[in-house]
Amino acid sequence: MVSRRSLTIDTEKATRTTYVLGTELTVNLNRCAPPQSKSFSIKCGPNVHYKVTPPAGDRNAAPYPLTPNSVLIVTMDAVSETANDSKLSVRYYGEKTESLGDAVLHLTAVEISLDVDADRDGIVEKNNPNKGSWKWGPNGHGAVLLVNCDSETTYKKTLDSEVDEINKVSDLQDMSKMILRTNGPAELPEGYKLTMHISQTTSENVRVFRPRTNAKKDDLFLKDYIMVVGTDTLTQEVPYLGGKTELAFFVEGLRFPDKDFDGLVTINLSLLEPCGKGFPETPSFLYPFIYHLTNSSIKNLVDKCGYKLKICHEYMNRGDRWIQDELEFGYIDSPHHQFPVVLDSPRDGDLQDFPYESILGPDFGYVTRHALNEEVSSLDSFGNLEVSPPVTVNGKSYPLGRIIIGVAFPTATRGRNMTQVVQDFLWAQKVQEPIALYSDWLVVGHVDEFMTFVPAPDRKKFRLLLASPDAGYKVFKSLQNNGHGKAEMFPGLPEAISVNEILSDKKLQAENRYVQNCIDWNRDMLKKELGLDDEDIIDLPILFKVLEEKTGPRAVAYYPDMVNMIVLGDKLGVPKPFGPKVNGRCALETEVCSLLEPLGLKCTFIDDFAPYHKLLGEVHCGSNVLREPSPFKWWNLELRERD
Amino acid sequence: MVSRRSLTIDTEKATRTTYVLGTELTVNLNRCAPPQSKSFSIKCGPNVHYKVTPPAGDRNAAPYPLTPNSVLIVTMDAVSETANDSKLSVRYYGEKTESLGDAVLHLTAVEISLDVDADRDGIVEKNNPNKGSWKWGPNGHGAVLLVNCDSETTYKKTLDSEVDEINKVSDLQDMSKMILRTNGPAELPEGYKLTMHISQTTSENVRVFRPRTNAKKDDLFLKDYIMVVGTDTLTQEVPYLGGKTELAFFVEGLRFPDKDFDGLVTINLSLLEPCGKGFPETPSFLYPFIYHLTNSSIKNLVDKCGYKLKICHEYMNRGDRWIQDELEFGYIDSPHHQFPVVLDSPRDGDLQDFPYESILGPDFGYVTRHALNEEVSSLDSFGNLEVSPPVTVNGKSYPLGRIIIGVAFPTATRGRNMTQVVQDFLWAQKVQEPIALYSDWLVVGHVDEFMTFVPAPDRKKFRLLLASPDAGYKVFKSLQNNGHGKAEMFPGLPEAISVNEILSDKKLQAENRYVQNCIDWNRDMLKKELGLDDEDIIDLPILFKVLEEKTGPRAVAYYPDMVNMIVLGDKLGVPKPFGPKVNGRCALETEVCSLLEPLGLKCTFIDDFAPYHKLLGEVHCGSNVLREPSPFKWWNLELRERD
Repeated sequence: MVSRRSLTIDTEKATRTTYVLGTELTVNLNRCAPPQSKSFSIKCGPNVHYKVTPPAGDRNAAPYPLTPNSVLIVTMDAVSETANDSKLSVRYYGEKTESLGDAVLHLTAVEISLDVDADRDGIVEKNNPNKGSWKWGPNGHGAVLLVNCDSETTYKKTLDSEVDEINKVSDLQDMSKMILRTNGPAELPEGYKLTMHISQTTSENVRVFRPRTNAKKDDLFLKDYIMVVGTDTLTQEVPYLGGKTELAFFVEGLRFPDKDFDGLVTINLSLLEPCGKGFPETPSFLYPFIYHLTNSSIKNLVDKCGYKLKICHEYMNRGDRWIQDELEFGYIDSPHHQFPVVLDSPRDGDLQDFPYESILGPDFGYVTRHALNEEVSSLDSFGNLEVSPPVTVNGKSYPLGRIIIGVAFPTATRGRNMTQVVQDFLWAQKVQEPIALYSDWLVVGHVDEFMTFVPAPDRKKFRLLLASPDAGYKVFKSLQNNGHGKAEMFPGLPEAISVNEILSDKKLQAENRYVQNCIDWNRDMLKKELGLDDEDIIDLPILFKVLEEKTGPRAVAYYPDMVNMIVLGDKLGVPKPFGPKVNGRCALETEVCSLLEPLGLKCTFIDDFAPYHKLLGEVHCGSNVLREPSPFKWWNLELRERD
Repeated sequence: MVSRRSLTIDTEKATRTTYVLGTELTVNLNRCAPPQSKSFSIKCGPNVHYKVTPPAGDRNAAPYPLTPNSVLIVTMDAVSETANDSKLSVRYYGEKTESLGDAVLHLTAVEISLDVDADRDGIVEKNNPNKGSWKWGPNGHGAVLLVNCDSETTYKKTLDSEVDEINKVSDLQDMSKMILRTNGPAELPEGYKLTMHISQTTSENVRVFRPRTNAKKDDLFLKDYIMVVGTDTLTQEVPYLGGKTELAFFVEGLRFPDKDFDGLVTINLSLLEPCGKGFPETPSFLYPFIYHLTNSSIKNLVDKCGYKLKICHEYMNRGDRWIQDELEFGYIDSPHHQFPVVLDSPRDGDLQDFPYESILGPDFGYVTRHALNEEVSSLDSFGNLEVSPPVTVNGKSYPLGRIIIGVAFPTATRGRNMTQVVQDFLWAQKVQEPIALYSDWLVVGHVDEFMTFVPAPDRKKFRLLLASPDAGYKVFKSLQNNGHGKAEMFPGLPEAISVNEILSDKKLQAENRYVQNCIDWNRDMLKKELGLDDEDIIDLPILFKVLEEKTGPRAVAYYPDMVNMIVLGDKLGVPKPFGPKVNGRCALETEVCSLLEPLGLKCTFIDDFAPYHKLLGEVHCGSNVLREPSPFKWWNLELRERD
């Protein structure tokens, strides 16, 4: 829509104004008409164009009749060479076409275009008509901002977003470029100025920098960038350089979307017009730009296998082995730049400083949420935060998968939960709509204790693996049936126990019936929320036992929990279950291999019995995987309001 | 979508379960199959129906082959008369069709339907398929909740939402009814129970009550209602009464949508199944219901004229005349009930207790927002909060109009603003998307100082009236031109001044040029945001003067501000301007009448010079109008995400 501005002219005094190319000036001709005016005529220079409404026939004809709503619409099609070099005048006539007065308008035409990458191709195009609004989807538009959550320095680290100056030129890469293109006379007419401005709320979410205009282009050093708007500076004049020039700005995102912030920020540019001595200027022209701050996406199972594993040295982890619980990897993405981000859990183990100290750095971001007045529980560990592969559910597609978290049972009078601030953060990222499973039935309470995803060549390109006591009992009954009732679980270990003994333990059976109920509840939920069929799910034979805790009975795996595996492409690192041996081979391993190998997966069983299992964790918990970001761009999602 | 539940059966022990009509039980037949099972057959009572997947041809045929994904889907079509009166059994066969074992399932069928007014006609229909989701629009669905923000008592008042019990049966009318319809045996099978539950977050937004089940229906008194879920009670068992019964619940909304709350709340009902001694029950069936809390709509200019005016007695207002500034009237609406609400400003005049003390009562609600760490300014007065008539802008319709507020200029380095909590509240109501105008150029800073709406028979059915110094000067010049230059403004008053003197005051002229600029900025904004043409706007002749305040120059009306009028249908109460008299009649009144009377409006000029004008307020500020709610229902809006 063309931007329109009302202007008043005057028969007693010439009016001067600055016109921005592409806009329209509207002048109510009746307002300044001398008393008794009945008609008017218009004269103007070759650069100036006008239209009169209501239309009055041939514009070359004699005076137009003056009506209460006679409006003059003025446009220009080329920039001025000097201030006030164009002119338009209105002559008013009385009853007998005698002249009653002339209202003269002096015009200066300038071109002003503040440009962003509104078409999301990584290049700041000129004057995109959609730059003032933001729309999701592949046919959407509007620029994207990264949250500058990495650190350009590698010692004495601070998040870049916490520093309100630019320390290294490389930091500009983490910001989105904005270009002010102007064209016009060497100077703006007296009293005019350009200003950039943001609201108080926006100043918590973005900052804008620009190079000093007196710095030489190839000799920029640190202090050559100044903050234009940001914290405590809501508005500032920006230079008009004259002639045809471009001035670069760099927009820095400071906050991820959250419960109280939808991610959209607006930056405004105004041309201020003087109102006479002693009065504030008024904007004669206002440009709003909308940016969307990047949503952070949690790591995602992708086809490509090209992972970097970062070794967490003992001196760094101080004996805290659960790196999976302390952090989760994600990434942030914009058309011009992307980098990984570590999401630090509110969990407070000995590893607590690891993400910040060891991972945060140039192009490796960091984000955390602190629990407010809430107890942090085991459910806040990120072993309790997974992401599904891409799925389509009842026609709705989730190209970046869905986040899966574990919470207390909906009917529980009390129970542990993932901290509200983290849940709010995850829900606010929008692009991976979370699914809340029931995990509080477990002592540790993590979803990765009963489920994982593995790649598959067919169907939905993955399978959901679920721990299944029923499948476990089936293996043990089959062993007994085939004459291996005396084969021992945990062979050679002090815990050794025969298949017959296990099968005759009625208490264990009741416990596992309860556990199967709990897992089946989650199975039904996952089938519904991920659109899965039974054929998309594989039951792994895992028994649990139930411990009497202060707050009620809760379960742990009876032998190393094979579902708590590490998945690296088609290679699976599976906790070694120490099952009963048949012909020298563990029957549980045989069963798991027979279930997974037809999918082209290779199982390696890892003995983590001593270091991890006895401390109630498995392989998965003791490692973490930094995956390739998905080639899918989050802003191409077609999002609509929840209904 | 049909609700599905996974169930495990057992060849060693019969399984008992309770089936809810309309759902499906799915049984993985391979899970519990004895080792070496190759096929199976199924027998069941007449009340039980089943399907096998993958399909195995004719169901009356010999045993079905057992595959790893053989799934049995069980349904029933009538409720049980006694517990476990229906039966299904699965027989497994080995290689040579010898029987390997039977898995027996005893079933109790019940009907459970928790019903709400999902089709929004004021009646709780039975089992609406859409009751679990919420959608805006005339083809939308989902129940609506009022915020119980009135007070059933008229002395020792408290907001009903702040009391967690029902004090008067009339209070039930402010809640939304929910009916639990059950049908089945006299008692549920042992260990089963029904529970209602909500999340911690939801408990801040709603409460649910029900009558005690032992109270006689026609003899209910106060303590016969108990809270089922709400603050500190997230889950509670609800009685299963046996046979075919209905139990009424009453859902009470506690909070309006706001920045951090989208208005949607979910209430769940579960049927809990026993898991054996010592284990918690697990839900065998879960019903989520989504409610939308009412959005509050601000008063609206409607065609009908049927207003009640409430007199604000002197002893009550304690000399604070600006009732318009202290409060604004709105209403909340649901299909079964609606009532007006007073929105109390964070302003802290002497009238501050008036809305609560005098207005809050049965079916008259109250809502306020308190400023957090922010200075409350004159812009927080509700003279600075107006609502446009219904408009359609670029195809988007606002059937309840748009909220109009005044704020500081976007480019201002500092300025007064409407408190953020109030702005957030207004924006969160969604249905009347606000427009922010620039009003900080005025000493008082209220939008009602330069604009109002009046009804009109043609075009958009209203006109926007704007204060216009240009229109004012036109009247004075015309007077001078016609020989009335010596006529006096403020005739007979000490302030008397001639038309000639006014027109020769260059300072006043410069001030009014600045004011016209400020109003024109708002004019352009209103044209764009309300989709208005120049023909929809009428300029009223009003001059301003500019005072030098500490924080810069700011304007007040030079003579009583006629645009600050009170509109009662076609009757306008206009502040008497005390303009120059021509033939015994005030020329300003003549001009205003000639502009408004052709629209069928009747102007009465009210002398408020002494009591109001000198204190910088006008008629409008000293009164407030409780208007009829719009017949349009807010939930019929077609809302989509901002883009």
